[in-house]
Amino acid sequence: MAIVEVNVTPLGTGRPNISSYIASCCDIIKKEEGIRYQVTPMSTVIEGDLDRVLEVVKKIHRVPFHNGVQRVLTSLTIDERTDREDSMEAMVQSVVT
Amino acid sequence: MAIVEVNVTPLGTGRPNISSYIASCCDIIKKEEGIRYQVTPMSTVIEGDLDRVLEVVKKIHRVPFHNGVQRVLTSLTIDERTDREDSMEAMVQSVVT
Amino acid sequence: MAIVEVNVTPLGTGRPNISSYIASCCDIIKKEEGIRYQVTPMSTVIEGDLDRVLEVVKKIHRVPFHNGVQRVLTSLTIDERTDREDSMEAMVQSVVT
Amino acid sequence: MAIVEVNVTPLGTGRPNISSYIASCCDIIKKEEGIRYQVTPMSTVIEGDLDRVLEVVKKIHRVPFHNGVQRVLTSLTIDERTDREDSMEAMVQSVVT
Repeated sequence: MAIVEVNVTPLGTGRPNISSYIASCCDIIKKEEGIRYQVTPMSTVIEGDLDRVLEVVKKIHRVPFHNGVQRVLTSLTIDERTDREDSMEAMVQSVVT
Repeated sequence: MAIVEVNVTPLGTGRPNISSYIASCCDIIKKEEGIRYQVTPMSTVIEGDLDRVLEVVKKIHRVPFHNGVQRVLTSLTIDERTDREDSMEAMVQSVVT
Repeated sequence: MAIVEVNVTPLGTGRPNISSYIASCCDIIKKEEGIRYQVTPMSTVIEGDLDRVLEVVKKIHRVPFHNGVQRVLTSLTIDERTDREDSMEAMVQSVVT
Repeated sequence: MAIVEVNVTPLGTGRPNISSYIASCCDIIKKEEGIRYQVTPMSTVIEGDLDRVLEVVKKIHRVPFHNGVQRVLTSLTIDERTDREDSMEAMVQSVVT
């Protein structure tokens, strides 16, 4: 199980607002099975088997291209550990005392 | 006003769990004035004047050093726009349809 | 073709120096076919077909686990464009005037 | 002394190519004193006193705004250690065996 923070950024769209592209990405994520996710102000966090999560990341990376964008930057951070199971909720609880 | 996503990562701590260091960073942030913040599973998002937020980032970057760590990686992404005011809540609402 | 910047960060290693883990990752990359790569001070940049590059990223993400590490953070940024072919060298030349 | 990897990304520019904005950032960096830098395919790495480097980061973050852009994402990773002096060249040499 991995926890992955991901950002999809379309470039050259002509307007500073890119939320419609990100909303389309979120629509894809919410239909995927076998993962859990949480939308945060600047990223989306996805929890699941790493191979499965990376398949979803590839899908959402392609979303702006399908909507006419010619260049996309997608950033992600994979957090994986073998000493114990982690979860998105546990990660927040462990630092907010 | 900027919205900044930040991560402080202490290296070489001897244990895979680093949440006590991050909890100390959150303690600092919660006492700071003139900013708003939100803890997410893999980051903390801070909203405020950019100079002010970067002062806070420098403070929390130093926290693990004060706790005996010898190397710290701090990653941040600054999102700033001049076309309109944005907020952490508006950013989430605009993509979750 | 995509250009991908990647960082593998082992946590809890007990020492601030992590270069031996990164050197093992570079050893893997240099044996991979169908990609080009460049080591920079804080990252490795890999150029190739996106699916192929992500396979390599998954391989190097696992390297520290094979070397006894219990938690690994791997960050990557994918830059892909459809308007023209890009290369690592062209990207540097286009900004250094 | 810190080593900082930085990326400035202008959004909504109307064209997928953003290299002219990044070239303007590099022009600023090359005139700054007290720092060393290196341009890599997807980032610029700056070495120097952390406060000094963050001043430079703030300057280059503002460059696209001066050139008419309405939204800028700037990502950076700070790598600072107290156990020994590091340099951009030493970091590459330590992993390329």
